[in-house]
Amino acid sequence: MQAIGKTCLALSFALIAATSSGADDGKPQTTSEVLEHSKASDWRTPNAVDLLILTLDDGARVLMELAPAFAPNHVENLRALAREHYFDGLSIMRVQENYVVQWGDPEGDKREIKTAKRTLPGEFFRSANGLNFSKLPDTDVYAPEVGYVDGFAAARDPKRRQAWLAHCYAALGVGRAMGADSGGGTELYVVIGHAPRHLDRNITLAGRVLQGMEHLSVLPRGTAALGFYEKPEQYVKIRSLRLAADLPESERIALQVLRTDTATWQAYVETRRFRRDAWFIEPTGHADVCNIGVPVRAAQ
Amino acid sequence: MQAIGKTCLALSFALIAATSSGADDGKPQTTSEVLEHSKASDWRTPNAVDLLILTLDDGARVLMELAPAFAPNHVENLRALAREHYFDGLSIMRVQENYVVQWGDPEGDKREIKTAKRTLPGEFFRSANGLNFSKLPDTDVYAPEVGYVDGFAAARDPKRRQAWLAHCYAALGVGRAMGADSGGGTELYVVIGHAPRHLDRNITLAGRVLQGMEHLSVLPRGTAALGFYEKPEQYVKIRSLRLAADLPESERIALQVLRTDTATWQAYVETRRFRRDAWFIEPTGHADVCNIGVPVRAAQ
Repeated sequence: MQAIGKTCLALSFALIAATSSGADDGKPQTTSEVLEHSKASDWRTPNAVDLLILTLDDGARVLMELAPAFAPNHVENLRALAREHYFDGLSIMRVQENYVVQWGDPEGDKREIKTAKRTLPGEFFRSANGLNFSKLPDTDVYAPEVGYVDGFAAARDPKRRQAWLAHCYAALGVGRAMGADSGGGTELYVVIGHAPRHLDRNITLAGRVLQGMEHLSVLPRGTAALGFYEKPEQYVKIRSLRLAADLPESERIALQVLRTDTATWQAYVETRRFRRDAWFIEPTGHADVCNIGVPVRAAQ
Repeated sequence: MQAIGKTCLALSFALIAATSSGADDGKPQTTSEVLEHSKASDWRTPNAVDLLILTLDDGARVLMELAPAFAPNHVENLRALAREHYFDGLSIMRVQENYVVQWGDPEGDKREIKTAKRTLPGEFFRSANGLNFSKLPDTDVYAPEVGYVDGFAAARDPKRRQAWLAHCYAALGVGRAMGADSGGGTELYVVIGHAPRHLDRNITLAGRVLQGMEHLSVLPRGTAALGFYEKPEQYVKIRSLRLAADLPESERIALQVLRTDTATWQAYVETRRFRRDAWFIEPTGHADVCNIGVPVRAAQ
């Protein structure tokens, strides 16, 4: 891999080995150093009832964590939809460049619903109280404050006393029509482009993809308006959408997510705000809330 | 397309028909209305010596506009590399999820260079003077000021009197190794994820993709460190990289780009900052510099 020498184009969200900057005081200075020094207690295992596993027709799996603290009714409804196998055999019908992948019923909500609800009042924001909000010291274009709650990028308005999930890359959202109450979970989308933060507080976010984004982001873009596929034969079939809790242990995906309420998290954030890796000339000193990926690793 | 009724997931960068908000004063209120009312003089035709056409092995074409105002030496060198057919037969070797696509010589710069230079001093920023800078009224996480210069998203620091191109989605950059002077244009990258603005002022940006992003963004992600492909058979071969000026008229791509120094541009920006389309409940009132796509259309 001679090419790497020539092409060390800075670090990514991936957990890769970085050049140490030779810290004098022995404190971890780079992202990789912070993660290497993390303790078992710095990581959490998501609840199995909060994990959705989307399996595409070719067997590719996408693992999503639900956010009941922000969208309790939609999360409950998504669990019900998964339990009645609502999405099995439905399709991804829309892949819009630099925007979203979206799936649901190509027949337009004709599929019968047994126990879940078809629509729910929107959960666009919630009270800012009672959240374990790790505030990012940087400004934000769209909100007075931004930070992380249980691994989810979030925003907060102290005056309005509201908090909401941010439309970052990999956010999982609930499609709706014109009315605020017209969505419910039968159409879902995942952000595959630069964060469309103008959607914040306009639509319900219910979670984020933890693993498998690369199965969604590479799908061919739809050429009809809004990135819809023009022909049914272009649809990407869904084999199943299941709650991890409903799967046998052998079919689950055992992951851990870095906690966002620890000293290790704060140290991690600082390595993303100030780039001390040798490659950087200008260490930046700031970070966009959507540019600090919350690390995910295989269960250890 | 019954599904669209259910799934009007807000506007995108695409030039699609939007619901009119029924403006009383007859002024265009939505993005589509502003573009529909634009005059011929609101659009410009890029110079053929500033247009690079990357053709992949399957015939897919990616059109990029160079930014000589920001990286004059690199632009000149890219023209020279294109003219000596440097990239023909080389490959895309790296596709990193939510980050960059990168191409160059898999053998690590073994290919002979005839007239171009292998390396150049970095052009990470320039003087803020003498630029037609349309300032965006919103804040930015990474820079004191942001805006648009001749269609390119850019940033500015009045105290340092510097300006630079912003690492937005579709930005075209020049890979470098550890030294600031170690790049030159033989390895190029395009941003395919959430804007990695921490790279601003750390590496030379030389332009942006105007058309064909969907041919780069869908490429399979590399599974080696930094998203490099593990095996040569995974490389995506480049048929050619040419300057439009060197192609016969019939092989050029005739496009126009919305000018960013007009009243129409200001009106367009306002429709992106304040979403007046009927779907929006919370009109936002802000925009990230990387969230306002500069429209491109077929020459008329």
